[in-house]
Amino acid sequence: MRRVYFDHIASTPLDPRVAEAMFPYLKEFYGNPQSLHSYGQETASAIEDARQKVAQLIDAETEEVFFTSSGSESNNFAIKGMALAQKARGKNIVVSAVEHQSVLHSVKSLEKSGFSVTEVPVDRYGLVDPEDVRKAITPETILVSLMLANGEVGTIEPVADVAKVCHEKGVPCHTDAVDAVGNIPVSVKTLDVDALSLAGNQFYGPTGSAALFLKKGTRCLPYIDGGIQEGGKRAGSENISGIVGLGKAAEIALKELQERTEKVKPLRDTIIHRMRQDVDHVILTGHPENRLPHHASFCVEFIEGEAMLLNLDMKGIAAASGSACTSRALKASHVLLAMGFDHAIAQGSLVFSLVDQNTSEDIDYLFEVFPEIIERLRQMSPLYPKQHEE
Amino acid sequence: MRRVYFDHIASTPLDPRVAEAMFPYLKEFYGNPQSLHSYGQETASAIEDARQKVAQLIDAETEEVFFTSSGSESNNFAIKGMALAQKARGKNIVVSAVEHQSVLHSVKSLEKSGFSVTEVPVDRYGLVDPEDVRKAITPETILVSLMLANGEVGTIEPVADVAKVCHEKGVPCHTDAVDAVGNIPVSVKTLDVDALSLAGNQFYGPTGSAALFLKKGTRCLPYIDGGIQEGGKRAGSENISGIVGLGKAAEIALKELQERTEKVKPLRDTIIHRMRQDVDHVILTGHPENRLPHHASFCVEFIEGEAMLLNLDMKGIAAASGSACTSRALKASHVLLAMGFDHAIAQGSLVFSLVDQNTSEDIDYLFEVFPEIIERLRQMSPLYPKQHEE
Repeated sequence: MRRVYFDHIASTPLDPRVAEAMFPYLKEFYGNPQSLHSYGQETASAIEDARQKVAQLIDAETEEVFFTSSGSESNNFAIKGMALAQKARGKNIVVSAVEHQSVLHSVKSLEKSGFSVTEVPVDRYGLVDPEDVRKAITPETILVSLMLANGEVGTIEPVADVAKVCHEKGVPCHTDAVDAVGNIPVSVKTLDVDALSLAGNQFYGPTGSAALFLKKGTRCLPYIDGGIQEGGKRAGSENISGIVGLGKAAEIALKELQERTEKVKPLRDTIIHRMRQDVDHVILTGHPENRLPHHASFCVEFIEGEAMLLNLDMKGIAAASGSACTSRALKASHVLLAMGFDHAIAQGSLVFSLVDQNTSEDIDYLFEVFPEIIERLRQMSPLYPKQHEE
Repeated sequence: MRRVYFDHIASTPLDPRVAEAMFPYLKEFYGNPQSLHSYGQETASAIEDARQKVAQLIDAETEEVFFTSSGSESNNFAIKGMALAQKARGKNIVVSAVEHQSVLHSVKSLEKSGFSVTEVPVDRYGLVDPEDVRKAITPETILVSLMLANGEVGTIEPVADVAKVCHEKGVPCHTDAVDAVGNIPVSVKTLDVDALSLAGNQFYGPTGSAALFLKKGTRCLPYIDGGIQEGGKRAGSENISGIVGLGKAAEIALKELQERTEKVKPLRDTIIHRMRQDVDHVILTGHPENRLPHHASFCVEFIEGEAMLLNLDMKGIAAASGSACTSRALKASHVLLAMGFDHAIAQGSLVFSLVDQNTSEDIDYLFEVFPEIIERLRQMSPLYPKQHEE
């Protein structure tokens, strides 16, 4: 059976060049980077080389990049670390309603220790209005966190405009850029954010490798306490091969981002076009233009996302119905609900996100099997209106 | 130049069989384990297989093992998670004075939010007396944390006895077993602990791969908030290859621990014997018998540890002067100070920890170069008493 992977947002395959760069750090080099001997120097310099490459990808200074183990850890680190470092100044945090669970659950855990959280709404495309952020900021506000791109609906948020509002009000701004970095050009200088999260498995790097950018001077407590790794900001023996892989993936993304975009974007557009043409009762979710180039997301009415995924999987096609981090929770996406979709329609969420190996044949195959799957599932669905059966 | 690695406690080399087990998860399999498709199922089942192997190594149930990114993260997770989960019951934590920085700094950060910390002393071998723990426990105590083996001095602590005292008092017990697991037999059932930290790079597994054992029913808040990974206890996309490697390393350790011990222990004993015989003013640190089988640690009088390390490194020999996590901090070890060594002597800390590739030729080479290094450094040292120069 043909196998087709349309689940970039869950995790990308590892670029073979990234794997190649990692192998020496699984075979030859193993010194603890903190050790005072040549074995340690070999790995320490590999880590600093990777740090420089990650910094270059996001237009940061090398010493502003801190390695972590996942985008979720980066988000916990930034939000809890920045909030706790500034709690003497105030205890309010502003986030959007469509943030990733690692942001929303981090602020929820801060609520238990006396912080308050203000959720800014989004429009039907999932876009935040910077003026809503301005209105939400109070003298108590010490942090605003707004994602750069939404993995569930692909929408790219106006982070630079929001950061400008934040700085006018003297409030630092964090952006969860996990779904964006490596897929669209990202400059921390242009965005003018104080903190930014990114993860390797969103741009052909290894899972378990991620980073947090903290602008020089940004107040943020360490999240993992202990040794002196990462300038004392993040204790724990470094994931050497993972960090090297992240660096290599960053280097490749910087060079090839344009080329990758030119490859996946027309394929993405074909999916959007054919979904509308070949399948009825389909709604494009997220912003029609201002969205990730590899990302096509829909609500398919009268069917549950999980049923579509399992049927697609039986045909060898991997897709998603929202964030992999909550896939097994089987709840309607908080993102779609915040965008104004009702529960029934939100249940029919379906996301195709392309990786650079995808071809137009993959898409032909998708539309060979998909309309039939939909038709069959709808016939079984109690939600499907009778008139369609006639 | 001959290169000799005597720094097991900083990090072990990766077992080639572990690397081999990891490669498919860097080349072929990349689905997000949480995804509802076959790509995700492939990696999800690999993770569950690894979980079972880690559980077997420590005699735990599979569902009691939670993967993390480092021993330090496991310690932060256990200590902060267990403390915060029980703060309604009390706010005192008991630790030993010789814990790893990731334990000591975790309790220090809890002190900022109203917890109190009681440090239990150790004897000159670094041993905790369980009766001291009994005395330290108050009705306010909600957690005791005592390491299983000390990486700086090799001493194995009486964790089972301490856990017994804890349970008599109704207090849960965590052990930082990072330096022990995979190197000595460890059974969470025999120790009867409620939580235990371990890390792959202490037994020929990959860096960046670690785990926390939490006994069923143990109250512990998640440390990284977000998605539903690790049963909702630790969010973030899984480090798939790292976890697979940890599992393989655990499987090998369970089978070959005895054999490895039989190999390194005589070599370790030779180092201890020859240090006493060939070098004067050398004190064995840690317990003479009750210590890690691969671990030989000393204080060499009148010299600083760093100077010895750099001179050994110039001869191709890698050793340590304490924990790699604090190596660059250049402070006298809190472990040696707690054991009653004065600052001057503690500065001369030197740790040789053997890996299973070491041979008796490695040790011959060490003693070919070491006495000369010592002699030269002592002649330069203002601390060295004049009478020795005559």
